Amino acid sequence: MALKQALDQLHKVLGNQFTIAKSELDLHGRSESYFPMTPPDAVVYPESRADVEKIVEICAIHDLPVIGWGAGTSLEGHGLALRGGVVVDFTRMNKVLQINAADMTVTVQPGVTREALNQELRATGLFFPVDPGANATLGGMAMTRASGTTTVRYGTMRDNVLGLVAVLADGRVIRTGSQARKSAAGYDLTALFVGSEGTLGLVTELTLRLHGIPEATSAGICAFPDMKSAVNTVMETIQMGIPMARMEFTCADTARAFSDYAGLEMQEAPHLLVEFNGSPEAVKQDAERFAEIVEDNGGSEFRWSTREEERKALWAMRHNGYYAILATRPGARAIVTDICVPISKLAQAVDETRADIAASTITGPILGHVGDGNFHTILLVDPDNPDDMHEAKRLSDQMAFRALRLGGTCTGEHGIGMGKLGFMRTEHGAGWDVMGSLKMTLDPQNIMNPGKLVPGPLLH
Amino acid sequence: MALKQALDQLHKVLGNQFTIAKSELDLHGRSESYFPMTPPDAVVYPESRADVEKIVEICAIHDLPVIGWGAGTSLEGHGLALRGGVVVDFTRMNKVLQINAADMTVTVQPGVTREALNQELRATGLFFPVDPGANATLGGMAMTRASGTTTVRYGTMRDNVLGLVAVLADGRVIRTGSQARKSAAGYDLTALFVGSEGTLGLVTELTLRLHGIPEATSAGICAFPDMKSAVNTVMETIQMGIPMARMEFTCADTARAFSDYAGLEMQEAPHLLVEFNGSPEAVKQDAERFAEIVEDNGGSEFRWSTREEERKALWAMRHNGYYAILATRPGARAIVTDICVPISKLAQAVDETRADIAASTITGPILGHVGDGNFHTILLVDPDNPDDMHEAKRLSDQMAFRALRLGGTCTGEHGIGMGKLGFMRTEHGAGWDVMGSLKMTLDPQNIMNPGKLVPGPLLH
Repeated sequence: MALKQALDQLHKVLGNQFTIAKSELDLHGRSESYFPMTPPDAVVYPESRADVEKIVEICAIHDLPVIGWGAGTSLEGHGLALRGGVVVDFTRMNKVLQINAADMTVTVQPGVTREALNQELRATGLFFPVDPGANATLGGMAMTRASGTTTVRYGTMRDNVLGLVAVLADGRVIRTGSQARKSAAGYDLTALFVGSEGTLGLVTELTLRLHGIPEATSAGICAFPDMKSAVNTVMETIQMGIPMARMEFTCADTARAFSDYAGLEMQEAPHLLVEFNGSPEAVKQDAERFAEIVEDNGGSEFRWSTREEERKALWAMRHNGYYAILATRPGARAIVTDICVPISKLAQAVDETRADIAASTITGPILGHVGDGNFHTILLVDPDNPDDMHEAKRLSDQMAFRALRLGGTCTGEHGIGMGKLGFMRTEHGAGWDVMGSLKMTLDPQNIMNPGKLVPGPLLH
Repeated sequence: MALKQALDQLHKVLGNQFTIAKSELDLHGRSESYFPMTPPDAVVYPESRADVEKIVEICAIHDLPVIGWGAGTSLEGHGLALRGGVVVDFTRMNKVLQINAADMTVTVQPGVTREALNQELRATGLFFPVDPGANATLGGMAMTRASGTTTVRYGTMRDNVLGLVAVLADGRVIRTGSQARKSAAGYDLTALFVGSEGTLGLVTELTLRLHGIPEATSAGICAFPDMKSAVNTVMETIQMGIPMARMEFTCADTARAFSDYAGLEMQEAPHLLVEFNGSPEAVKQDAERFAEIVEDNGGSEFRWSTREEERKALWAMRHNGYYAILATRPGARAIVTDICVPISKLAQAVDETRADIAASTITGPILGHVGDGNFHTILLVDPDNPDDMHEAKRLSDQMAFRALRLGGTCTGEHGIGMGKLGFMRTEHGAGWDVMGSLKMTLDPQNIMNPGKLVPGPLLH
């Protein structure tokens, strides 16, 4: 009856910002991935920090889990209520609170999506660069330390969150960071919260770094005989200091999927998709210098353009990659892997991954953020076929352990959630226990998104 | 007698890596700043991580403070043994362990200085950019989250430490981060340790990001009628996306000190000292575009050059700024302040600071990292004159509280140590207690650099 009491109290305090309608619970019990449906006991829609404080207070009294929810685009089950409890949906906290153009910062509520923010910024000449593909909320992106195609130039959420406000499990509210661009004043609590996946508190406000919209952009595409020559091209480009804005690659299978989906003529070979930002002269020069490096590495002619429609078509193709690949096996669902390795190990990691997939019973084209050493396989499975699911899990595990052997990480940008818990001990050793201790310190009841990120004893 | 027992045991285990010679204790009881001499009970010189583990184990058993020591260049008393104990001098852990040119990373022991590292990197075409002026150790720089003149382009230690190995108070050893350029795998322990000032553990290894030595560099100087026009120039330059490598400013008093010290002809006016890195064409273009912005803001002709000797002379002048300013009052010592504010508030902060100093009984020229909003006053005092010291303290406090009022931080790059403890409550509110809880979790005995960074109850 503790649960009923808690829900009654939440309902009383929140009125129509509280629901236990089955459709709502189901909507918040689903994930974009292969995890089973796990509906919470209730969904609440805070409209202010005060609402969030009330929610946390009531849940703490009744020992009820509190799970943050943005756009629901997580791929590792971050938002699933594994132990029941209350999903806190930030959809209504979607205000851009303050644009500070002079300092190139913006303060937002966590429910603002990245597209909505950039829409709002249109008139300023500024933009927020982190782009994970999905139109995620900025709160969700901060909590998973999201990155994406522009990270090679602009960094991840780690680099673009200047500060935040969080409500802790015990009701305290902290404001981390400042409006200044750097600080040496104590522990970096901002960085501790970015990537914490809602396990340390609920974020109610974020201050983000903005960037000037580049005067000009050039973008293009080229093919390579093998992964090694593509990766060498990337390494030489970075070492020459040519400032890339995006540097994406696709394997031969992905290139074929792109061709079939969009009716393009792409060679069935590894490709690089590249973008440069800067002055009109600089982006021309960067593209020309890049073309020389491509040629030296045996790549095909680098076809590039500064015309907006051609660039847009290129990145639309990249962003539709997921759907292009899904279309190669109608009716299939995708399990998306996400390892990141040192760039010097990338060709090896991709080649070995391709060989593993080729020897398996399923298909899995590859695409990724080569400038960061981060790549994804889109493993295509019939979710009702246990053999497919088992094979996908086996391949995914193999990739993660390979990444760790090569000095990398089991997740470049999707986070741990519940999906990657099994690799944390190998990746972090005693560091994982330290994470558990930090979690226990700030959330001794373990009500903040339990079952995610930290070691098992906390699961109860 | 517990102390004697502990020291005997350390001596027995470490042999000639242990000393209680008065000269050594005194050397490690001094700081670069105004704090009273505070010698430790012993100094130890580990040569390996195993040595560090033994030292921490013995100190933990005997409840003896452990204080890390790099080059002793801290300005906030970070290395002082406030409660006695053992200073761990990392001078002998000064090996560059692995240069990984392909991935542009390097792994070093904490006692390597930044100049020694760059010397070692000469043949690779790579360099480590963070430059706080002093030839500090990389361990010390990581622990204070150091930055400096190149931060506007290359970031602080926060941005350039990819991972580290730390020995914790309970003897556990953790390895944070990975060799990959990004990760979403759990709490960012690297960022938690960078800037922790030795209060969470002793770092025995660091993996750092390297950067390609730019093909070409242009640098130059110009004067402005007032701070506002100088700061506007900086803001417009950033907003236009012109990639500055350095962007320093000096107030009129500093310009006069430079002139007198180096026999130059500088106007007694605010100046900007600027550098651009890139291809020969790009740095020329950047300098020309910058010159236009300077002109639009009423600045003097922007005199710039790509010749190495002229650039070197410019930055030697900047790096000798401290001595140039000291020379304006022979026999004086300097108290260096270090606030950082949003760039839009920088002109106001500098102008009000100048007015405060003008109304005081001491002098204090200003110079700083204008691209970051970070500036220093060099307050000149007679250390034997209590009135001078009192006045410097009053001005310094005034500046720190002003920075906080303007949305900034009490320290941009020097850290908290013991010197800035008094501002932590105002800057972080309940966040400071959170820092205290995290500290208590990892170091319940409070043996790791006690009396620094975290709240008072831990001081005993």
